[in-house]
Amino acid sequence: MGGRARWADGFIAVDWGTTNRRAYLMDSAGACTAEFEDGKGILSVPAGGFPDAIADIRGRLGDHPLLLAGMIGSNRGWIEAPYVPCPASLDDIVEGIVWASERRDAIVPGVSFVGDGRADVMRGEEVQLLGAVASGMIPANGLVCHPGTHNKWASVVGGKISSFRTVMTGELFSLLKDHSILSDLLQRDVEPDEAFRSGVRRALDHDAQAELFGVRARVLLNQSPRDEAASYASGLLIGSDVRIGLAGNPAGRVVIMGRPELTELYAAALGEAGASFTEVDGERCFLAGASAIAERLNDVRAS
Amino acid sequence: MGGRARWADGFIAVDWGTTNRRAYLMDSAGACTAEFEDGKGILSVPAGGFPDAIADIRGRLGDHPLLLAGMIGSNRGWIEAPYVPCPASLDDIVEGIVWASERRDAIVPGVSFVGDGRADVMRGEEVQLLGAVASGMIPANGLVCHPGTHNKWASVVGGKISSFRTVMTGELFSLLKDHSILSDLLQRDVEPDEAFRSGVRRALDHDAQAELFGVRARVLLNQSPRDEAASYASGLLIGSDVRIGLAGNPAGRVVIMGRPELTELYAAALGEAGASFTEVDGERCFLAGASAIAERLNDVRAS
Repeated sequence: MGGRARWADGFIAVDWGTTNRRAYLMDSAGACTAEFEDGKGILSVPAGGFPDAIADIRGRLGDHPLLLAGMIGSNRGWIEAPYVPCPASLDDIVEGIVWASERRDAIVPGVSFVGDGRADVMRGEEVQLLGAVASGMIPANGLVCHPGTHNKWASVVGGKISSFRTVMTGELFSLLKDHSILSDLLQRDVEPDEAFRSGVRRALDHDAQAELFGVRARVLLNQSPRDEAASYASGLLIGSDVRIGLAGNPAGRVVIMGRPELTELYAAALGEAGASFTEVDGERCFLAGASAIAERLNDVRAS
Repeated sequence: MGGRARWADGFIAVDWGTTNRRAYLMDSAGACTAEFEDGKGILSVPAGGFPDAIADIRGRLGDHPLLLAGMIGSNRGWIEAPYVPCPASLDDIVEGIVWASERRDAIVPGVSFVGDGRADVMRGEEVQLLGAVASGMIPANGLVCHPGTHNKWASVVGGKISSFRTVMTGELFSLLKDHSILSDLLQRDVEPDEAFRSGVRRALDHDAQAELFGVRARVLLNQSPRDEAASYASGLLIGSDVRIGLAGNPAGRVVIMGRPELTELYAAALGEAGASFTEVDGERCFLAGASAIAERLNDVRAS
């Protein structure tokens, strides 16, 4: 089992989340030559089922070493990889890797932050963040916004994740849409339109918690069209999120990292807040991060 | 049909909400001599079923005039009684009553507020608020906090409801408890203990939306015991609510109005915020309001 050769010859990178997983076959030149995505997130894997779930990946992409990132390393996943505390560099992440079996299945740890009277955790985003720095896609110092069910604001200092904050904005909107008194008003698709932007502006200097019930009252009292309620409510929550994220970082550019369909609302909100920003594709960042880690694993195996 | 005599001889006051209804038989001296509460809120009444639901009330409490307040007058209720705009007095409420049938079934209107770039509505609380003023239970000028699924902050000026704001704090907590990633941490009963109070203090100068995910991270990182998470999370939401409610009203006492089991958390939070407050029982306020309205209906019928 020539470990060094195996990683250098190619590997499979997996971003294994709670409800989905995405697997990429990386060749020896660092290019992605095959990939798939499916709904086999960690919550869908039965007890003791991870070896089969992993064999399934190798069955589809080949018998290569596996780099497993995301919730797979959480206490609900396969094998727990303890969080690496901030400030966290790519080397720190590599040092924190937990080897599951035969040193061929590498489980990437998440990152934790404790300070300022609060605590926070991430799993999966660290590969994207540090990969983007390592490949020069984002600068070594700056603020990154990573939209998703749980939006992350990460401060990168000297190429390390120095601190971060999770705002569960996407989940709050889903809860309101699926289960709340606002539910019937929130079924339309949210667009970064003027209704969304007016919600953002409102939340830049008002508390979203104070404004949400008004979404319903505005419609009842004919102050606002019913079909604008979903975008306005989303604007309230994302505008509040952007206010929170920018609070500790008044100056400088923001990098928005993620899938384009997730980033456009945050781009619109940051625009309303007067912040300058650039966007980078989260999947490219993940592949850059996975490649940078695999390179270091090669070095580790050689030493 | 001697209308005057009928109201003066006694009536039934109903606080008819979304999921519950409470009915009180009031005698000619203004005392409550019988009552019941059941789960027949407006959402449980089938289309066309309100006449039967009302006959049921009379079957249990006697053949008296009915004063119907709350969601029964909403667009999801029996007959819509349009909102009375702020500033709203008890006389304005009486003028806005919609007579359902035979001038024996009075539907009390809700109150609306439009201003400061927002809109808001209430149905049912206005009877309590204006009843408390009319009976001298609260002063004619002040800030009232009315906890519930949807907490209301009402400014009373010159005996009228001059403005108010709804904060859907109770519903947000329920959504998080029943459906969110925090769900397993929020199942314990919330108490106004030190964990609750520390959540309140945190939210008095931090945005609750920014702190909620930390409830989970604190436990994962052993920064806080698991069994304190529910009280801490409730403290975050109620502390934020209190910060919102006090923002426009920096000075003066607050009256907390409601059922004692609902008011204790807000009392603790207001205490942490350094606000002085008194508590009044919401049911007594409702009965005072119903009696004050019935008195005016008597006068109206006589004129």
